[in-house]
Amino acid sequence: MNCEQLFQQILNKRSFLCVGLDTDILKIPKHLLDTSDPVFFFNKEIIDSTAEFAVAYKPNLAFYESLGWQGWQSLEKTVHYVREKHPDIFLIADAKRGDIGNTSNLYARTFFEKLDFDAVTVAPYMGEDSVKPFMSYPEKWVILLALTSNKGAADFQYLKDGETGDQLFETVLKTSQNWGTAENMMYVVGATKAEKLKEIRQIVPDHFLLVPGVGAQGGSLQEVAQNGMNSQCGLLVNSSRGIIYASNSIDFAKKAGEAAKNIQQEMDVLLQEKQLI
Amino acid sequence: MNCEQLFQQILNKRSFLCVGLDTDILKIPKHLLDTSDPVFFFNKEIIDSTAEFAVAYKPNLAFYESLGWQGWQSLEKTVHYVREKHPDIFLIADAKRGDIGNTSNLYARTFFEKLDFDAVTVAPYMGEDSVKPFMSYPEKWVILLALTSNKGAADFQYLKDGETGDQLFETVLKTSQNWGTAENMMYVVGATKAEKLKEIRQIVPDHFLLVPGVGAQGGSLQEVAQNGMNSQCGLLVNSSRGIIYASNSIDFAKKAGEAAKNIQQEMDVLLQEKQLI
Repeated sequence: MNCEQLFQQILNKRSFLCVGLDTDILKIPKHLLDTSDPVFFFNKEIIDSTAEFAVAYKPNLAFYESLGWQGWQSLEKTVHYVREKHPDIFLIADAKRGDIGNTSNLYARTFFEKLDFDAVTVAPYMGEDSVKPFMSYPEKWVILLALTSNKGAADFQYLKDGETGDQLFETVLKTSQNWGTAENMMYVVGATKAEKLKEIRQIVPDHFLLVPGVGAQGGSLQEVAQNGMNSQCGLLVNSSRGIIYASNSIDFAKKAGEAAKNIQQEMDVLLQEKQLI
Repeated sequence: MNCEQLFQQILNKRSFLCVGLDTDILKIPKHLLDTSDPVFFFNKEIIDSTAEFAVAYKPNLAFYESLGWQGWQSLEKTVHYVREKHPDIFLIADAKRGDIGNTSNLYARTFFEKLDFDAVTVAPYMGEDSVKPFMSYPEKWVILLALTSNKGAADFQYLKDGETGDQLFETVLKTSQNWGTAENMMYVVGATKAEKLKEIRQIVPDHFLLVPGVGAQGGSLQEVAQNGMNSQCGLLVNSSRGIIYASNSIDFAKKAGEAAKNIQQEMDVLLQEKQLI
C-alpha cells in the first residue's frame, strides 16, 4: 500500500487507529479454546468487529511464536483473512527484526513474500545494511524503532553523541533518512514520550509515525495528535489490550468494536481540528 | 546448560566451534528436495557429521521463517533432534529479538519453553526490560549484540557518548553488566573487528563471546583467539556457510564434517597455546 492510499483510508474511515493483535492464548475467552484454531478465530472476530474503525492491524510476532509452528499457522491464516475480507487494511508485522544484510533479505522475503504484510518493524542497532533489504519491495514499508515506549528506552536511546549533541534516537532518525523516503519508511515513537513528538516532527516532518503506548501504557491521544499530526495525518496510533481484551466473555467482539469506535470518534474530532476532514 | 558444562564440553572436544545452521532451501543439495522435510533432513545430516567437532549450533531464525509455519516446524524438529541425539550440545536461537518487557517475556517463553534452546541472541536498543525476561530462566542465556560484523555496525555502534567518551557498543557492554552475570549473558562480537576484541576483553573479562564473521565474512580465527580467549576459553566462534555449504552434492555431510574438523584442529592448537588443554 502506498502513502496516498493509506491517507485516503484515514480520510474515509475518519480514523488513524491501528489495532494491535497481541493475541495471547492465555487471555482470550475460554469458549474459544474448543475451536480448531482459537487464536485465528479470535483474530477473525476482532477484525470483523473493528475493521470499520481501524486502518491498520499489527500482529506482534512474539504472541504467535510462543505457540510454535501452530502459532505461525494462525498468523498466516490471519493475514490471508485480512487480505481476502478487508483488502483496504494496512498490515504491520510487529517483529522488531534486524540482522546482517544477507539475513535481513530473508526476513524481508518472509514478511513481504511468504506473508503479504505491508510493513515490518525493524530495530536500528545493526545499521543500514540490516534495514535496506526491506526497502527493495515497492509499496512495502520499514517501520524503524526510534524512541520506544518502555522504561528501557532510557538505557541507550537518549545517549548524547559527543560530536553532534544528538541523542541516539535523533541520530537514528537523521541517519536513516539517507536510507529511504517518507514513501517507504515510518518510525516507532512511543506515546509515553508525547512531549518528544514535537522535536521528532522537526526532524521527520513528512514520515508516518507508528505510536504505541496509548491506553494501557499511559499515553494521551490528544497530546499525540497535537504534537505529531502533519498534513497527511502522519500518525498510526496503536491500541492493543484496550480493544482486544475489552471483554473476555462471549461478547468480546462486540465490546472490542465498541472500544475501537470510541477511539475512532476521538480521532474523528482530532482530524477535524487539524482540518484534514 | 551452565558455564562449567559448556567449558567442559570445549575441553572434551578440543573445540569452541559453533556451526551456524543458516539453512536456505535454495542452497541445499537438490537431491534433498524430494524428502518430506528437506531443511530438517539437511540439518540432521549436517549435525550428525559435525557434532564431534562442534560444541554449539546456531540456527538463524530468518532462514526458517522464510518458509512460514513449515519452516518453524523444521526448526522445532531440529531442536528436538539435537536434544535427543546430541544432548551435550549448546543450542543458540539466532533470533535478534527484543521488545517491551511484556513481549520479551513471550519471546523467552518461545525459545526456552516451547523450544528448548540454551540461548537466544537479543538486540540491546530497547534496554533493560527488553533483555531481562530472558534471564529469569536458570541455566539459560542471553547473547546480547555488542559489536556486529556487518558494514552497518558503523552507523550507530561506534557513536561516542558525550559524557563518558564510550562508544555505544562499550556502553552496551558496561550497562548490561548490571542486568546479568557471566553465568547468564554472552555478547556478540564480530570477528571482522578482531583488534577490538582486546578492548572488549578489558570491559568483560569473564563473559563468553559469540564471534560470527570468521570465514565468509573475512575474520581470522587466530586473531580472535589471541585477543579474545580467557581462562575458560570464553569464545564460541561461529562458522556457517564455510561448513554447511562445503559441498552441495551428495557428499555434502561428509564435506561439512571435514570442514568442521579442519577448524576444530586449528582450535585444538589455539587451546593448547593458551594452555587450556
